[in-house]
Amino acid sequence: MGELDFIEALRAFATHPAARGLADDAAVLGDLVLTHDSIAEGVHFLTDDPPESVGWKLVAVNLSDLAAKGAEPLAALMSATIAGDGKWEEAFLAGVAAACEAYRLPLVGGDTIALPFGAPRVLGLTAIGRGGPVVPSRGGARPGDRLWLVGTLGDAAAGLAVLKADARAEGILVEAYRRPVPLLAAGRLLAPHAHAMMDVSDGLLLDLARLTKASGCGARIDLDALPLTRAFIAERGGGRAARLFAATGGDDYALLAALASDLDPGLSLCLPSGAIFAAIGTITAHDGIELYDAAGDVPLPERLGYEHHRT
Amino acid sequence: MGELDFIEALRAFATHPAARGLADDAAVLGDLVLTHDSIAEGVHFLTDDPPESVGWKLVAVNLSDLAAKGAEPLAALMSATIAGDGKWEEAFLAGVAAACEAYRLPLVGGDTIALPFGAPRVLGLTAIGRGGPVVPSRGGARPGDRLWLVGTLGDAAAGLAVLKADARAEGILVEAYRRPVPLLAAGRLLAPHAHAMMDVSDGLLLDLARLTKASGCGARIDLDALPLTRAFIAERGGGRAARLFAATGGDDYALLAALASDLDPGLSLCLPSGAIFAAIGTITAHDGIELYDAAGDVPLPERLGYEHHRT
Repeated sequence: MGELDFIEALRAFATHPAARGLADDAAVLGDLVLTHDSIAEGVHFLTDDPPESVGWKLVAVNLSDLAAKGAEPLAALMSATIAGDGKWEEAFLAGVAAACEAYRLPLVGGDTIALPFGAPRVLGLTAIGRGGPVVPSRGGARPGDRLWLVGTLGDAAAGLAVLKADARAEGILVEAYRRPVPLLAAGRLLAPHAHAMMDVSDGLLLDLARLTKASGCGARIDLDALPLTRAFIAERGGGRAARLFAATGGDDYALLAALASDLDPGLSLCLPSGAIFAAIGTITAHDGIELYDAAGDVPLPERLGYEHHRT
Repeated sequence: MGELDFIEALRAFATHPAARGLADDAAVLGDLVLTHDSIAEGVHFLTDDPPESVGWKLVAVNLSDLAAKGAEPLAALMSATIAGDGKWEEAFLAGVAAACEAYRLPLVGGDTIALPFGAPRVLGLTAIGRGGPVVPSRGGARPGDRLWLVGTLGDAAAGLAVLKADARAEGILVEAYRRPVPLLAAGRLLAPHAHAMMDVSDGLLLDLARLTKASGCGARIDLDALPLTRAFIAERGGGRAARLFAATGGDDYALLAALASDLDPGLSLCLPSGAIFAAIGTITAHDGIELYDAAGDVPLPERLGYEHHRT
């Protein structure tokens, strides 16, 4: 039994409607939106990553799931392990505290386990939010919808690549990788209007494939429309290869929303000042994702993103 | 930084009232009761424990925290790791499913992580419940209150001792260790009347010390009144040593409640048919726990229970 079998076995008994088939960013129980993401040393972060950034990221990735459902954060419970002398954990906790403070997320409980020295750390957070009147799923996109992306793509993946070349590297891209920003305000504004919405955490194309699969449709994406930052373009350029890298990199924590074609969030919604957003494509009636740019159709890359088998 | 320092550091920013100072069985946020317990291989369970029982226990211990607050289970999110070939996890999941079914607990989400082969498994569950009109804390006991225990003591610890002598042992005591029963119905009935309530998971005397510390009082306990099963007495006897063993063993998942002295749950509350309960002592005005039995005062043992440093 591998991860996918395990998740299938979970689905067999996680049949409550709140579970949304274990195929959404979060569970939706009445007006509550519930999510849990765990991260493990050696899998989601490296031992020499700054522990503050691991703590920040644990909080931010869970808040990004709430953002994707338009939910307001209410509280969190943390599951932490302690391994070694505790210095790492002290710094980790400072990162958790900083993110909780930044997003006004009360930490209200959890559990702490001392693991044997050298065991990989496993850190988890359950975030609980209150949904608005509409909590969009991944499954409601309709042919003809426009696909909007809030946030930018590729910075985190570019930052990770920079770090792989030089573990002491710093800068905007490294920061994007280490300290993702959950787009809570944008998510709340988009949710009532979104036919489907999710956060882009594993790579745009992989997450889009999940959205279109859940919606029973396809999508056509304009690579030239993907929002890239100046820092990204300075590092990797803005051509087709760079854009494919950005579309498959992961760790973006942007929001992807399918909106009615006549709705322009720049005109109709008061997105937070400075929010970056772009129409990146359309939902199509037939299965599959098509890519194009100014030079014509672009073959879909073999690897669409980073699979980490969330349940 | 050890576990206790870590928890102190958590307390410094977990200041929201819902956190209850990270000193209760659960967080209480509006009408929600929230708890998260994680268990780790080699710490809370052994590699050769039957994985079904580990899955059952993960669910049951969290439900016991809800029972201690009189809450009705609403949903759970699970954090699971996969290590090795997945056979262990398949059986573990069957135990989770059985407990969720037995207590009508919908599993609505979570996360799955594949760990490197040989890494200790870390498994967590967040349980969310709805509290009644009163959600008792550990801190409301008053001098003169009677202390009631619902459930029995010592079976699980006796079962663990049996298993340590013979890993293939079976029987009622081993079952009590492996498949604890959360006392949800009793908890709901007691909660509106309890000045203080908690579940006994780490040993009666240790948990009682937490309750009296939180309440700013002490307690006097009649060892002869502790409810023991026939199976326990058959294995370890019913004398003072056996009763001290039962009072410090842990893994009981009984409920400990401080009730007004004139309230007898056997007369006033419709406890579930067959529920075992006993008045085991009284709350005193002065600090400290005193023990006695028919032969006189009994010195407090040095070890009051099993410390596993829950936050």
